[in-house]
Amino acid sequence: MKIGFIGLGAMGQAIAGNILKAGFSLTVYNRTVEKTTALQKAGAAVATTVAELCKNADIVLTMITDDSVLAQVSDGADGLLQHLKKNALHISLSTISPDYSDALAAKHAALGQQYIAAPVFGKPDVAAAAKLWIANAGSAPAKEKAKPILQVIGQGIYDFGEHPGAANLVKLSGNFIIAAMIETLAEAYTLGEKNGITRNDMHAFFSSTLFPVPIFKNYGRLVADHNYLPIGGSPKILQKDMRLVNEVAANSSVPMPFANIVHNRMIKMANQDVEEDWAGFARQIATDAGL
Amino acid sequence: MKIGFIGLGAMGQAIAGNILKAGFSLTVYNRTVEKTTALQKAGAAVATTVAELCKNADIVLTMITDDSVLAQVSDGADGLLQHLKKNALHISLSTISPDYSDALAAKHAALGQQYIAAPVFGKPDVAAAAKLWIANAGSAPAKEKAKPILQVIGQGIYDFGEHPGAANLVKLSGNFIIAAMIETLAEAYTLGEKNGITRNDMHAFFSSTLFPVPIFKNYGRLVADHNYLPIGGSPKILQKDMRLVNEVAANSSVPMPFANIVHNRMIKMANQDVEEDWAGFARQIATDAGL
Amino acid sequence: MKIGFIGLGAMGQAIAGNILKAGFSLTVYNRTVEKTTALQKAGAAVATTVAELCKNADIVLTMITDDSVLAQVSDGADGLLQHLKKNALHISLSTISPDYSDALAAKHAALGQQYIAAPVFGKPDVAAAAKLWIANAGSAPAKEKAKPILQVIGQGIYDFGEHPGAANLVKLSGNFIIAAMIETLAEAYTLGEKNGITRNDMHAFFSSTLFPVPIFKNYGRLVADHNYLPIGGSPKILQKDMRLVNEVAANSSVPMPFANIVHNRMIKMANQDVEEDWAGFARQIATDAGL
Amino acid sequence: MKIGFIGLGAMGQAIAGNILKAGFSLTVYNRTVEKTTALQKAGAAVATTVAELCKNADIVLTMITDDSVLAQVSDGADGLLQHLKKNALHISLSTISPDYSDALAAKHAALGQQYIAAPVFGKPDVAAAAKLWIANAGSAPAKEKAKPILQVIGQGIYDFGEHPGAANLVKLSGNFIIAAMIETLAEAYTLGEKNGITRNDMHAFFSSTLFPVPIFKNYGRLVADHNYLPIGGSPKILQKDMRLVNEVAANSSVPMPFANIVHNRMIKMANQDVEEDWAGFARQIATDAGL
Repeated sequence: MKIGFIGLGAMGQAIAGNILKAGFSLTVYNRTVEKTTALQKAGAAVATTVAELCKNADIVLTMITDDSVLAQVSDGADGLLQHLKKNALHISLSTISPDYSDALAAKHAALGQQYIAAPVFGKPDVAAAAKLWIANAGSAPAKEKAKPILQVIGQGIYDFGEHPGAANLVKLSGNFIIAAMIETLAEAYTLGEKNGITRNDMHAFFSSTLFPVPIFKNYGRLVADHNYLPIGGSPKILQKDMRLVNEVAANSSVPMPFANIVHNRMIKMANQDVEEDWAGFARQIATDAGL
Repeated sequence: MKIGFIGLGAMGQAIAGNILKAGFSLTVYNRTVEKTTALQKAGAAVATTVAELCKNADIVLTMITDDSVLAQVSDGADGLLQHLKKNALHISLSTISPDYSDALAAKHAALGQQYIAAPVFGKPDVAAAAKLWIANAGSAPAKEKAKPILQVIGQGIYDFGEHPGAANLVKLSGNFIIAAMIETLAEAYTLGEKNGITRNDMHAFFSSTLFPVPIFKNYGRLVADHNYLPIGGSPKILQKDMRLVNEVAANSSVPMPFANIVHNRMIKMANQDVEEDWAGFARQIATDAGL
Repeated sequence: MKIGFIGLGAMGQAIAGNILKAGFSLTVYNRTVEKTTALQKAGAAVATTVAELCKNADIVLTMITDDSVLAQVSDGADGLLQHLKKNALHISLSTISPDYSDALAAKHAALGQQYIAAPVFGKPDVAAAAKLWIANAGSAPAKEKAKPILQVIGQGIYDFGEHPGAANLVKLSGNFIIAAMIETLAEAYTLGEKNGITRNDMHAFFSSTLFPVPIFKNYGRLVADHNYLPIGGSPKILQKDMRLVNEVAANSSVPMPFANIVHNRMIKMANQDVEEDWAGFARQIATDAGL
Repeated sequence: MKIGFIGLGAMGQAIAGNILKAGFSLTVYNRTVEKTTALQKAGAAVATTVAELCKNADIVLTMITDDSVLAQVSDGADGLLQHLKKNALHISLSTISPDYSDALAAKHAALGQQYIAAPVFGKPDVAAAAKLWIANAGSAPAKEKAKPILQVIGQGIYDFGEHPGAANLVKLSGNFIIAAMIETLAEAYTLGEKNGITRNDMHAFFSSTLFPVPIFKNYGRLVADHNYLPIGGSPKILQKDMRLVNEVAANSSVPMPFANIVHNRMIKMANQDVEEDWAGFARQIATDAGL
């Protein structure tokens, strides 16, 4: 099977690298061509257009910022929809809106192409270690075809049925849960600090008793240290994720007060142009508390 | 060493049972005398007054609902302060306010008695299994004296320094973190359900990928099943805990929007007289969402 | 000038009635034809299609539930865009999204037609008394042409410039302000009631001292009496308004915690199918408080 | 009748001035003696101790920052309780907690002294114009005795029954309503500004249509101008007021999400040591929105 990969940000590079390592024939494409260099050295072919990438590809994976950039990649004269082979499969790894994902699936289906959503959980270091958690959704044969690829990039694949948007909603929900966990930690550790308990002592306790789990330990560590690097996503991207959570909530009439709050936090962060991800909630809370 | 134990609710009975099993000489006291029966059969002596319990006790543990009930036990003619032997130690396991804990410590000290706060994490089944997590604080010699007892009731003891109130604040913070985790889960699972993803599928994913940890699995299971039994604390008690978190936050000038929300949830639950603990947030959220 | 009017709900009927009373030649259209009876008796012509209504109309006013219903009226074979005369003016009185309003304006312009947004403030009784407050926006000549009509339906016209969407945003903002005022009153009166002060005494004080203004007196009266009739808009409609406020806020990166809360309140009300408008917030708050 | 007045901040000076102007015999006391100068020139006697002030006073008014400062004035060797004549009346104008007010009333009663709570609404300029709104509560004869004084300092007296704390709760509720109104305005005007509508245009519309009332006009003017002077109360004082609202809400089990938010805003302001009152919410919101 010949594989194409579009979107070589930090996540995309790590994932594409693992596909290559697993022995698949890989062609990559990225708008900024410099980002293809490392993978080219490692053995990947480089396409200069989406059309060229699609020529022989049986499967094309995309790892793209958001709905509108994915639309640029999908639509138009040099778009995936135009050039993907009949029966070829588009695996969308991106964190996009469920509605857009379902709409894109319908367009592919109308052209005799396959599409699944397979968004992933993990920062770039997790992607590099091929330890991503993957939620996928789409037609059964398409998911079956995707499996050998997804298995070499992640440590577990969870199925969410036929509607691709369901997997995207799981991804958005997961990001909401992470954001809410960080807000929770940051409020608690700040309360401790203002009452004479160090952030370190708080973190040592909770991360080894109630929550001895990597995601809590890692984000809690950043919050305890007020050290927010490396970031797992730019403020604008994470603001988009929280906006999507709130949009789905509004459209399906679910009141989500915590989701409102973390959305507002991300809006503030994006407005202030800090280079921090949501771990930076801890800075907002500390500042609000006069620390 | 002779041990006394006051407060035989579900938690107290389980903890006292483990002290007894470990071979300590134990005398128990409870306002409602029926609750002493099981422990008496197991070998504990039963005191009919606090004074009697204190007579020979080197250490007295209390596991009491709240500040005001603990004050009834501590103050007055038949109170701990009046009757505890000089140099004897009061280990307060209860979830009480940091300020009250510090004030009580000062009273004991003035009488030549010792006091530490050692609040515990875990439901009654965890207490029965001697798997509680314990945060303790107080003077070093007092903590040293308490250690043999605490070791037989829990699986880990964490030290938070000289001021007893610090341990109580850690306990309150932990309860806040649990409440916020439940709110988060319940919002996410409800969002999933209203968009065609079962609560079970959501829970299976998150509890085995990002949060494979007992507290998340257990509460998430209850939330996924809309089954809130057995409860870990009555609504009035948990309302009190959330009120204390918000009180400490207000007094130390820390804005805690998540703590405000879970406090309001507990107020609603307590007003509606449901017999559910905070897992019941899930019912509020589902109802609000029209499910 | 010949006038057309589309959308004869309670608001539309009252407004159209005043246009008729002022002596204008009026043709009306409504999907449910029964609602045209009263105006027909009062002298209005009744059109059975939008096309027929547009035939001689110099100005067509629409008073429609939301974006999607207005799109049904505007687009398609029997739509306003298709049939409105060149240079004729569409005055949109509806509470719709700023983006849709601007998009519709562009479509009209492309066809050589005029469009202004002129959303109105006031319940049906205020409309009947020709005492509406009107925010309008659009091209200067179009607003000039609209003036004689707007003057007979309202007591004041405020200009918000060239972009029609600006007037729609003012309307949405106003609805947010009203919703927030009701939440505020309801929280305060409930706090009073739970502490021994009657809702009536609270209301008598605040409505004659700090806020002696009809909107506060009227909604405050309903809140004080737990009597929510007559309603000023169905829960679904008001949910839509609050959703739009939050959508504009999200899209323009403005954190609005109060808007989040009143949006959630409207979601709950709409989910519970009560026939109350936002005055019903008071019922939610009283129930939450155990009253 | 001989009148004493304790507490000569900006409000106290203005109020005491009006009592003097009305022809009452007035003795004043203030910890910082400099603040008595202007009133002394205007004809007031100056006492150097509370005891001296009480010597001949039939009525003593206090206008004091908070519970703890009022306790300093009331208790102790030079306190009001010790020195107020039998049957003399203490009129407490301060914004204090209902519980403290009721407790102080009981102490006065036990000593054969009278006490009413009569908190006032209005900034210092309103106080100077004798246009305050007054909520009073206490025993009927005490309110009757207070009337001639209250009539010369305000434009209206509203009665809230026998329990003094009720009047204090009305005052706290009013401050909450004002804070919530400012938050509402600031969110709406910021939303407008980020979407091309000037704060001035927003304010011109709402303050002349829906809310043509001084308090909305005045605070809205400050919000529209980002000009927060003169301030109506220091951040620390207003934080205290919002803390008390939330405390009463917690103690009486009323969920008040808006009150939580304005409390958090005041905490932030007080932590940041800005010299702005709650009109400064508008600065927080504008900053959060990236303006």
